[in-house]
Amino acid sequence: MSQVRVHNFSISLDGFGTGDGITFEAPFGHAGHRLHEWMFATRFGRSMFGGTGGTSGVDHSFAERHGHGFGAEIMGRGKFSAQTGPWTDVGTDDEWRGWWGPNPPFHTPVFVLTHHPRPSIEMEGGTVFHFVDASPQAALDLARDAAGDLDVRIGGGPTMVRDFLAAELIDTLHVVQVPILLGRGVRLWDGLEGIEERYDIEAVSSPSGVTHLTFTRR
Amino acid sequence: MSQVRVHNFSISLDGFGTGDGITFEAPFGHAGHRLHEWMFATRFGRSMFGGTGGTSGVDHSFAERHGHGFGAEIMGRGKFSAQTGPWTDVGTDDEWRGWWGPNPPFHTPVFVLTHHPRPSIEMEGGTVFHFVDASPQAALDLARDAAGDLDVRIGGGPTMVRDFLAAELIDTLHVVQVPILLGRGVRLWDGLEGIEERYDIEAVSSPSGVTHLTFTRR
Repeated sequence: MSQVRVHNFSISLDGFGTGDGITFEAPFGHAGHRLHEWMFATRFGRSMFGGTGGTSGVDHSFAERHGHGFGAEIMGRGKFSAQTGPWTDVGTDDEWRGWWGPNPPFHTPVFVLTHHPRPSIEMEGGTVFHFVDASPQAALDLARDAAGDLDVRIGGGPTMVRDFLAAELIDTLHVVQVPILLGRGVRLWDGLEGIEERYDIEAVSSPSGVTHLTFTRR
Repeated sequence: MSQVRVHNFSISLDGFGTGDGITFEAPFGHAGHRLHEWMFATRFGRSMFGGTGGTSGVDHSFAERHGHGFGAEIMGRGKFSAQTGPWTDVGTDDEWRGWWGPNPPFHTPVFVLTHHPRPSIEMEGGTVFHFVDASPQAALDLARDAAGDLDVRIGGGPTMVRDFLAAELIDTLHVVQVPILLGRGVRLWDGLEGIEERYDIEAVSSPSGVTHLTFTRR
């Protein structure tokens, strides 16, 4: 059976997976790039957008798992767009097609959870954004169908990762704790008391200052 | 100048330094002993109450710093007693004298922060509990006078550690992150956005599963 995995999900020491004040210019709000600097310093992070170089140690080893073996991703609407409510730009010349340029780093079907379905968007490189109004389980059924024998990535943000954890749908969860305190934003861990009973948890700190937490379902 | 230090302050992954539902029987509420099992497995933890054996690796090395070089401690009332409001047992045969038996593991003056001052209590082994209604700075002035050239330990719980951090009074903060999610209780990190700008932060994970975070003032 294919696995359902979260990788490179970065949070602050106080547990925020995104900051406050999200806009198209600031997709992580006041957090800026601080939650993901560890990743963009790695060989994997550099290569995501065509760059070269970068570190190849523990951070890279974890980070590159994001890229292997996936046949589909499910993401929350907030990862696709800073717009909320009904879409206002569908079919216009200014239609928003995600933060990632013409060739997004997914290369698979991507199911975007939204209460406002709209036509799919086909990008270069194999990424197709589908927009679905579905429960975590129903969305996962769609993604599994699309992924075949490959795994399904749960892409974030924090609210949908929390929903999938609460629904007991996640096999592997890789969280990266960054040594900053954001103070405000959206927390990952709310309402998940006792999930350690369902997972084996490993902690590995890196010379870069981040700590990798890996949750493996028992 | 003597240093102001916090050691072995244990929190859950979701940032709670104590659980919900604190009583005399459950000083950490529904957290039980889970926040401190890592410490009681070490040689230092065993020796605190006269035991022998225990591990002597990274957890012990951090834990034993709690015991070296201190001339006074400041603690919140909640660390001394589960009772709140005016003291009702002063001078009675049932007078509460802390959780630690006749010879508490402090061996110095201990300043207990409370809005309800009461006479000091002298214990065996050098521990004297003083009860003071004071701001963090005023309490630290008292403790420094008592400590002489030695350091002052900030003993917890989470609310008073947070208050001392906010007042910029802490030189070294050792936080131990335990891989459990408590879901409820008292959080350490609330209201401390950006304190990483004042500290160098190191993370070291241990084979026991906990991660030691050390904040050293710049």
